[in-house]
Amino acid sequence: MTMKSAVSRLFLASLLEGIIVAACVRALPAPEKASDANRAAILAVLTAQQSDWNQGNIRGFMQGYWNSSELTFAGTGGFTRGWQPVMTRYEKSYADKAVMGTLDFSELEIRQLGPDAALVLGKWHLQRQAGDVGGIFTLVFQKFPEGWRIIHDHTTQSPPETKQ
Amino acid sequence: MTMKSAVSRLFLASLLEGIIVAACVRALPAPEKASDANRAAILAVLTAQQSDWNQGNIRGFMQGYWNSSELTFAGTGGFTRGWQPVMTRYEKSYADKAVMGTLDFSELEIRQLGPDAALVLGKWHLQRQAGDVGGIFTLVFQKFPEGWRIIHDHTTQSPPETKQ
Repeated sequence: MTMKSAVSRLFLASLLEGIIVAACVRALPAPEKASDANRAAILAVLTAQQSDWNQGNIRGFMQGYWNSSELTFAGTGGFTRGWQPVMTRYEKSYADKAVMGTLDFSELEIRQLGPDAALVLGKWHLQRQAGDVGGIFTLVFQKFPEGWRIIHDHTTQSPPETKQ
Repeated sequence: MTMKSAVSRLFLASLLEGIIVAACVRALPAPEKASDANRAAILAVLTAQQSDWNQGNIRGFMQGYWNSSELTFAGTGGFTRGWQPVMTRYEKSYADKAVMGTLDFSELEIRQLGPDAALVLGKWHLQRQAGDVGGIFTLVFQKFPEGWRIIHDHTTQSPPETKQ
């Protein structure tokens, strides 16, 4: 092998490597890199939900959920399946603005589960004239072309007698 | 450009494409392909948990959980953090085999959330002489080098008075 052909082979090899790395970086998810953006996008969904709830707008609040028959909600009464049944459940439990009260999410913890999924833990609190209620929740978010949406919600109401 | 050099360029281009595709296919996760194996592995963890519980072996049951201070458990009393505190919670709530009863998981639903994460919904039931209890749960599993482990558990006990 001549010096010139060795150099050109080396050049070709490193060019090849560069192209492969570039192609893979584009194709591969980058969860760490995207994490801040995902975190902000997820928080924006929850902030919008809070704001819609506090305007008595359950349909607006429901925009944070995946609009699918596969959406699941785990509550005291068991599982509710589907976007429409979940909304109906909210509408029945919170018939007017007084019952809805003022919603506040706190102690939010966001854990990335992969490029397109995240686990969100937190506390909810409803300030109401008739009496406050609150508890904890587990949300699973998934990233869709339209943005991050809740695909599963497990919400627990704390017993009113017990002070944590 | 000669005919020969055009052919060799075309050959080089398709070779390059082949190498890039092969490199990316190896690097990219294949969630659908792995789904059956993951499903079986997750079910095996839950079956082992059930079996350990029914032998009065809480430490064995705890092997299904991620052995980390970041493990989270959401129950009626709020969040419990860390593998050891979660085990202590179980040991306090279930002091002996009679209280532990016979555990049965049912209606399990496994949803892959990415290459290394899955959401598991289901029902739990404890058959006991002192009275049965049961409810629903949300589990988030993550795949570790040692296998699939529960990284978050949200368990709700159904109210005993209410018949669903």
